[in-house]
Amino acid sequence: MRTVVINAQGGFRLEERPDPVAGPGTVVVRVRAAGLNAADLQQARGDYPAPPGWPADVPGLEVAGEVEQVGPGVTGVAAGDRVMALVGGGGHAERITVPADLLLPVPDGLSWEEAAGFPEAFSTAWDALVTQAGVRAGDRVLVTGAAGGVGTAMVQVAAVSGAHVVASVRRAELHPRVRGLAEDGRVDVVTLDQEAAHAPYDVVVELVGGEDCLQRVALLRSRGTVLVVGVQAGTTAPLRMFDLMLKRARLIGTTIRGRSPAEKAVLAASVRTSVVPLLAQGRLRVPVDAMFPLGQFAEAYARLGGLGKFGKVVLVP
Amino acid sequence: MRTVVINAQGGFRLEERPDPVAGPGTVVVRVRAAGLNAADLQQARGDYPAPPGWPADVPGLEVAGEVEQVGPGVTGVAAGDRVMALVGGGGHAERITVPADLLLPVPDGLSWEEAAGFPEAFSTAWDALVTQAGVRAGDRVLVTGAAGGVGTAMVQVAAVSGAHVVASVRRAELHPRVRGLAEDGRVDVVTLDQEAAHAPYDVVVELVGGEDCLQRVALLRSRGTVLVVGVQAGTTAPLRMFDLMLKRARLIGTTIRGRSPAEKAVLAASVRTSVVPLLAQGRLRVPVDAMFPLGQFAEAYARLGGLGKFGKVVLVP
Repeated sequence: MRTVVINAQGGFRLEERPDPVAGPGTVVVRVRAAGLNAADLQQARGDYPAPPGWPADVPGLEVAGEVEQVGPGVTGVAAGDRVMALVGGGGHAERITVPADLLLPVPDGLSWEEAAGFPEAFSTAWDALVTQAGVRAGDRVLVTGAAGGVGTAMVQVAAVSGAHVVASVRRAELHPRVRGLAEDGRVDVVTLDQEAAHAPYDVVVELVGGEDCLQRVALLRSRGTVLVVGVQAGTTAPLRMFDLMLKRARLIGTTIRGRSPAEKAVLAASVRTSVVPLLAQGRLRVPVDAMFPLGQFAEAYARLGGLGKFGKVVLVP
Repeated sequence: MRTVVINAQGGFRLEERPDPVAGPGTVVVRVRAAGLNAADLQQARGDYPAPPGWPADVPGLEVAGEVEQVGPGVTGVAAGDRVMALVGGGGHAERITVPADLLLPVPDGLSWEEAAGFPEAFSTAWDALVTQAGVRAGDRVLVTGAAGGVGTAMVQVAAVSGAHVVASVRRAELHPRVRGLAEDGRVDVVTLDQEAAHAPYDVVVELVGGEDCLQRVALLRSRGTVLVVGVQAGTTAPLRMFDLMLKRARLIGTTIRGRSPAEKAVLAASVRTSVVPLLAQGRLRVPVDAMFPLGQFAEAYARLGGLGKFGKVVLVP
């Protein structure tokens, strides 16, 4: 099968690899679409190794496709089922082996590219906002980098949870599309310099990073939370600890990839029960920015790192 | 009555003020001893104003003494009762008005100076470690600045909760006294350069602050917590956000003084129910570093800011 492989220079190449075989508790999925994530680029640079049990040199953290083989001991899954999954790597290939307890059903009517863009962004958003920060109706939530893959998911998950969202988006031409992610009145879309005017916030979702990002602690309501989810623009920032103390605030860092297989299965079960139904009802949507055939992986990764994206970049093997 | 007052230069002077009168829901306490805290010095510098309803220009956050007057509507308290309390200010005086729902009983056999050193340190330690961080038996807890007033309380609260404590104390001559705060084997006392060798920690209690203090995030176990409680050595520090994310760690800032009266009453009730009994049983102790008559407030504050202290500095009106 054709597979994208990380090369020694931190770039990518296409390679022919043997087709996988389903083992105990796993299935083989014929990948129809696979999402791209910043973590793929970090992994290529050597900053973010794949967890044990996953291909160390193949990028791709989320896939959608049909079940092609069902391994021993797997129940409730049949060949031909439309599935999607958050995986530990190896998604940018024509086939992938996935533990059956990570599979999510793809709702009828959802395209492959939409399904491929769902697992990472919405699992991250649900876990961080709902499970960890405990966001609830009436809260005010600031989402930075709100036009990206995870950002558009955070805006929607906060809005369907009854929160009022302030979505911070640098590029004004994307504002109408971000505003359209939720019902009228649920989302204010602002530029960076307007974030303070909309404070205080119960939750700030940091998806950008950079030198100034922890100054947003000062925008919190008492007992508020900053979720540190993405820091591509700069991974170290000064924290004014007195702000954190006087606000009695929390800073929570989160990633999914390094969790144990059992923890990942628990998260998948929560997403299957609570989030996939909202997707099936059309209350959550997966904006797809661009699709590329597998062979055009270089263009796809360039688009991922480019400006002015709205939603997910997807490879189509 | 004689009262310590903050002067315009950020220092202190002694002043004669009218005796207070108990109003609805409050009592007047004849202060027999009052603890000193770093917050008194911060307030004098103008950095930490008293909350509404408390004297703006009189330091003193904790007192012990006898109830002298009982205001209308107060039940279960009688003149002559031995009480202690965490207050919003005004403790460094011969008398103080205290809301009745903040009063804690002073156990038999406890001296006034010990009682005066209990409320702030142990309320802070209980609230931060147990209520907020959820410390439990088997956890490993690092306490920085462990020889100070709050530090000695943190070490003891963690140890009685069944945690293993690593107490970081800069001055080696204080190590035996810190080791003596808990049963044999519950506390390792270390210098700063030995903190990493005893990692990982479930909870790190930051009582010192300074440029390097948030590097301790790297010493956490997965899903660990850094409690930011004291930052006198430096209030801004760089945070490596990637460490926070990969550890899935939490940073929690906490103070008590700015809380609402209702929240303070809830905390006092929790301390009355759960912590005062441990003090009465001798399972918690209040180390007193030094006592000064009220007129020697200058010497007392100098001692508070000095080196080599073990436990609380107390004024005796």
